[in-house]
Amino acid sequence: MGCDRKRIVISEVPSHITGFFSVFDNEDPSLKGSTGCGLTLSFSVRTKVENSERNELIFLGERKRIPTFENLLNLMNAEGIRAEIISSPPLAHGLGVSGAVALGTALCISLLRNMNLSYFEAGERAHIAEVISKTGLGDVIAESTGGVVIRRKPGAPGIGIADRLPVPELPVNLLFLGEKRTENILQDEEILRKVNEIGSECLRRFMREKTLRSFISLSYLFARETGIVDDELIEIVGEIMRKGGMAGVAMIGRTIFQINGNDLREYGEVFSSKITNTPGRIVHDSEISSKI
Amino acid sequence: MGCDRKRIVISEVPSHITGFFSVFDNEDPSLKGSTGCGLTLSFSVRTKVENSERNELIFLGERKRIPTFENLLNLMNAEGIRAEIISSPPLAHGLGVSGAVALGTALCISLLRNMNLSYFEAGERAHIAEVISKTGLGDVIAESTGGVVIRRKPGAPGIGIADRLPVPELPVNLLFLGEKRTENILQDEEILRKVNEIGSECLRRFMREKTLRSFISLSYLFARETGIVDDELIEIVGEIMRKGGMAGVAMIGRTIFQINGNDLREYGEVFSSKITNTPGRIVHDSEISSKI
Repeated sequence: MGCDRKRIVISEVPSHITGFFSVFDNEDPSLKGSTGCGLTLSFSVRTKVENSERNELIFLGERKRIPTFENLLNLMNAEGIRAEIISSPPLAHGLGVSGAVALGTALCISLLRNMNLSYFEAGERAHIAEVISKTGLGDVIAESTGGVVIRRKPGAPGIGIADRLPVPELPVNLLFLGEKRTENILQDEEILRKVNEIGSECLRRFMREKTLRSFISLSYLFARETGIVDDELIEIVGEIMRKGGMAGVAMIGRTIFQINGNDLREYGEVFSSKITNTPGRIVHDSEISSKI
Repeated sequence: MGCDRKRIVISEVPSHITGFFSVFDNEDPSLKGSTGCGLTLSFSVRTKVENSERNELIFLGERKRIPTFENLLNLMNAEGIRAEIISSPPLAHGLGVSGAVALGTALCISLLRNMNLSYFEAGERAHIAEVISKTGLGDVIAESTGGVVIRRKPGAPGIGIADRLPVPELPVNLLFLGEKRTENILQDEEILRKVNEIGSECLRRFMREKTLRSFISLSYLFARETGIVDDELIEIVGEIMRKGGMAGVAMIGRTIFQINGNDLREYGEVFSSKITNTPGRIVHDSEISSKI
């Protein structure tokens, strides 16, 4: 791997919060995925990728093992990759960080190693890495799209279909109440059956009334009815909803978000972000840096 | 139309330059379109839409008649719409401004009139308005996607397929050498046959080597071989290419662009922009303006 020692490629990928979803299983991991609705945030994940002696992932200054990252490197036949991640959102809080790391790393490796993949081709590898690592089912396609993303058909970028709800890039506040890991929840057959039944009903109802308010109401319904959200979180969201605010729980996590309102400040330390329409992208490639 | 007199909705849509393309005819205007490759620029079109006594389009301070706008209003059954356009790029210079006006207006009207269309639904109406007005075939889907856009399958947003080439948001200079109207060129059967033959060959070759350099070389080949570009422009692009620069002609227009280089300054006044990955979007809705 003595190739191009000094080349540096950097990507930036928005985080993604899902309000409601349903799971579509498939033997082919590029077809496996979820439908539902969520939003991407300017609260983003930056990944700097360069060649190295061995594979190495540095997450906020610490060496870390993230299975999604390791599976992605295997899928891309990439050895000797050093990725340094500066992530605003934390891992395992329902913000699709593992998907953002996978997508950002895939886009960078494609350039670093002159694989010259299209966005869909790089995104498909990131989606497969997420699916086989059981860390996410719909974050990669949402983060490849940007905005308030309506996942109509499951699957990888270029295979699934992701429409959007046109709204302004409103402020979004976040309250983090603890970790929750995706892989533990979707193993339970009974929970999965409920998620799929209620999630698909939410999407049907949303498609009949495509507004931000309806997205928020259906997300609240999903959180209450599926039983995958702790009562404490449901209560906080409920209180804000009764005051006319637009709040929800980030699936799957112990994180509450509020669109366009400041009520979360009553419950703890709040992080400020906003909806972004800009999908994950390359922000720097030392090989072709700006000459103007 | 006395409804909601004071509501104001504003959109921003990037401009779009095509390097090579081929035309796909179809009786259904949502399926009609083009394939090919181009890039969207931060040089953008802002559209402010509000309710009014009559339909009215103000383009850079002057009342104007743009058939694409009028057809769009008919398609959306929208009466009493006032649209004020602040466009950085000029009309009829190959930057997809009519498409940007159509997409931006469709997104705004959907909110203003509580039609609650999805992005694809609004984009489809904009695409149809372009197609029936003969002002463009692929700009709307490209401007709905953002970046260096590879139009793999023709048609409206949600129907056509648009992949991307992952590259940094590099600077792009523009040199405007005069007007050219899309509708006049694509009427000639012989030219159309050549465009389709060479355009589809360019896309095939591009898919085998998906790099910015290959996009530029194939765009140069397309400009030379199709005969739809004046010799003067081919010469300027050729001079820059021989110096190692990345230049091309904006299809269909008398506009030259250069990615990541300053050579165009020798030939006249240059406008500076950059590649943007952000697709057309809503930037303001007075009904739901920021409360934080």
